[in-house]
Amino acid sequence: MFFRKNPFDGGYAVFAGLADVLESLENIRFTASDTGYLDKSGLFRPEFLSCLENFSFGGNVFAAKEGDVVFQGEPILRVHGGLMECQFIESLVLNIINFQTLIATKASRIKTASKNGSLLEFGLRRAQGPDGALSASRAAYIGGVSATSNTEAGRRYGIPAKGTMAHSWVMSFDSEYEAFKTYADHYPGESIFLIDTYDTLGSGIDNAVKVGLELKQKGYNFGVRLDSGDLCYLSVKVREKLDNAGLTEAFITVSNDLNEEIIMQLLSDNAPINLWGIGTQLVTGGSHSSLPGVYKLCARETAGGFLPVMKVSNNPGKTTNPGIKQVHRFLDNSGSPLGDLITLEDETISPGSVYRFHHPSQEAVWFDLEHYASIRTMLTPVMREGRRLGLEKKLPEIRDYAAEEIAKLDRTCKRLVNPHTYKVSISETLKTVKTGLVEDYLKNR
Amino acid sequence: MFFRKNPFDGGYAVFAGLADVLESLENIRFTASDTGYLDKSGLFRPEFLSCLENFSFGGNVFAAKEGDVVFQGEPILRVHGGLMECQFIESLVLNIINFQTLIATKASRIKTASKNGSLLEFGLRRAQGPDGALSASRAAYIGGVSATSNTEAGRRYGIPAKGTMAHSWVMSFDSEYEAFKTYADHYPGESIFLIDTYDTLGSGIDNAVKVGLELKQKGYNFGVRLDSGDLCYLSVKVREKLDNAGLTEAFITVSNDLNEEIIMQLLSDNAPINLWGIGTQLVTGGSHSSLPGVYKLCARETAGGFLPVMKVSNNPGKTTNPGIKQVHRFLDNSGSPLGDLITLEDETISPGSVYRFHHPSQEAVWFDLEHYASIRTMLTPVMREGRRLGLEKKLPEIRDYAAEEIAKLDRTCKRLVNPHTYKVSISETLKTVKTGLVEDYLKNR
Repeated sequence: MFFRKNPFDGGYAVFAGLADVLESLENIRFTASDTGYLDKSGLFRPEFLSCLENFSFGGNVFAAKEGDVVFQGEPILRVHGGLMECQFIESLVLNIINFQTLIATKASRIKTASKNGSLLEFGLRRAQGPDGALSASRAAYIGGVSATSNTEAGRRYGIPAKGTMAHSWVMSFDSEYEAFKTYADHYPGESIFLIDTYDTLGSGIDNAVKVGLELKQKGYNFGVRLDSGDLCYLSVKVREKLDNAGLTEAFITVSNDLNEEIIMQLLSDNAPINLWGIGTQLVTGGSHSSLPGVYKLCARETAGGFLPVMKVSNNPGKTTNPGIKQVHRFLDNSGSPLGDLITLEDETISPGSVYRFHHPSQEAVWFDLEHYASIRTMLTPVMREGRRLGLEKKLPEIRDYAAEEIAKLDRTCKRLVNPHTYKVSISETLKTVKTGLVEDYLKNR
Repeated sequence: MFFRKNPFDGGYAVFAGLADVLESLENIRFTASDTGYLDKSGLFRPEFLSCLENFSFGGNVFAAKEGDVVFQGEPILRVHGGLMECQFIESLVLNIINFQTLIATKASRIKTASKNGSLLEFGLRRAQGPDGALSASRAAYIGGVSATSNTEAGRRYGIPAKGTMAHSWVMSFDSEYEAFKTYADHYPGESIFLIDTYDTLGSGIDNAVKVGLELKQKGYNFGVRLDSGDLCYLSVKVREKLDNAGLTEAFITVSNDLNEEIIMQLLSDNAPINLWGIGTQLVTGGSHSSLPGVYKLCARETAGGFLPVMKVSNNPGKTTNPGIKQVHRFLDNSGSPLGDLITLEDETISPGSVYRFHHPSQEAVWFDLEHYASIRTMLTPVMREGRRLGLEKKLPEIRDYAAEEIAKLDRTCKRLVNPHTYKVSISETLKTVKTGLVEDYLKNR
């Protein structure tokens, strides 16, 4: 599996969804009801259907670590097994990895835009289905979000669950002041007042200040939330009102269809915002709502061993790299990645040598990498004969790992707009195999 | 519930997801494990948690019919109940209706672009989570797709399940001819050959013709699929090769990130395409990946009855219509909708009278509707005290209903680009209540 283009016109992706894929693979079964449904189509022989009833996935899987930074054009997951079992799982693997990697990457971009600020994920109501919401919450947390408003995601994945009040809370009381006051009485240490139901500067902030002063006397801090209007202008005015009342510790939260561009603009204008509530644009990916990952056959067994195969295609960009492949990441002495080299699995890559990095499709474009401190093998065994290897990691651990890996990536690759292209190259040997296959094909057609 | 803007900058939406919402509402329960998790937060009193354990939704729901054509700014679903139960279900209702309505609408647009052609839904691998894929298949079918490649969706919802071969099928054989031949032997009446694995015009179409002639001799028809390259150019060339071989019945299927704009362009250029495989752009909504539906408190009970309430907001577009509302659709004598009038529920609307249609937010914009044949009440009871009313409809029945309703809509509202704005107006009485509330608010602040 690989994807042809980094999501969001960005410089990288955050690999996510692996644990869910492996759990699903371990549990694939066809019930009698499943085969009964297939039987009704009239397309399948009884032998095939009874073979399905005894099916379980028994292949081997190699993959990047969940939370790894990965790049366009390189293998991120590799499956070895019988043709049938490898084919059965294609859509499952693609569906889960494509979506969670998309959302983890989006979260990481928003985190970057917020200058590592605090992000709350509020996406449930506009997510693509109830499960789309759950896996989006999981992936967003891996990518750097601090908490979710989806309580079920909180429970299932151990993500901190947080929320604020709704407009309906405010509208269900006779006055805005009473609404805030009642909330503060119930959740004194957790109050974030939504101040835009009637008039943010005309009434909302004044009622929040009134209740906030009462909270302060009792030793509690609080926040306000802006959900409409000009967030830059309003946050400045609201900050002034809070500060003038001596509520300098009170914090300002904003929401309203935020994404990385809007956040970057607000911070570039010095809007005094402390906490970001991100919903729709985060959990759906906004205008980039899919990661176009693909899963391609690269080698098949023949009498003499494994034969590399490739798709040639009329679109050069859709031509694949043949053979059983590995990715080697070259690192500097601080652990920052310098470039990734795709090789055949059986090539020996050892630190100390100089390696030639060939452009994956352009003929005469290459460079030699001489100065590097270490090499990391990216695809490691995660499943053997259908059983997961190693202990499953807790989600916070994956999130910490992702944060470390993202931190190590050069900032030019993390730029939101026009990022530097991280080098993903192919080895001399892989290039030779690829060129050979294309030439064979051209000769024989 | 209503949405502020038609999806895809279009002229309408196709209401979908209702059956799933009602089923979920009927089954909401909090288990001891749920309340145990909530208890750990330390935020909730024991009385509240035990109240949750006894909770079930006992409200009344009124809604448009699933498959109805609905428009921006009008209520499409209305919930009556206790404040707590109405609030609990907000995200559930929004999540399901927002997503399925988005995708049903997208399918309907693609169907329009294809001039009511045959559409196959191929989206599983890029959908937003496994469940996102299932509910997308359901909604896409309502919106006009003919079949899905998601076998589980086929089983669960009774959607015809169809597919074609994968590149890996072709690459797993020693030759392309052998791959096609083997497929034809297994599925003689269901063969669609994927001809772009190596070279569409250089080898793919020739091998397909060879196997196709053998199939024809046995009395079977077949198709070919183009999945890359210039679909317009290639479909013309492939059609020629098929026709020259006497295979005039063989059909051409195309896929490759299609959407309504691409299809409209291909047909405007007379590309000879018979069948459309639509994946990613259909099941995610593409660059418009969410329907921004909202769920707002409109009235609350006081000693004296129901008090209309509204959100005023700093964004005029975010101001809501107060009160318990109904939508009346005025129809001409062929059943085509002329305009929708939002009224208070207790207004009497009877055919024969002239009604004034006020613009929902602009002061002096209105027209009188005099010539119409009948009036339809859009929001009807679908759940009473937490129990569904009436028999659940089968999905094909909903799909047929949607097709009829879409057919009745004036073509100017179905234009993909710059559609006519269908009139959704408010009644004289509703306008008076709304104006009164805003004036009260301005006086008292």
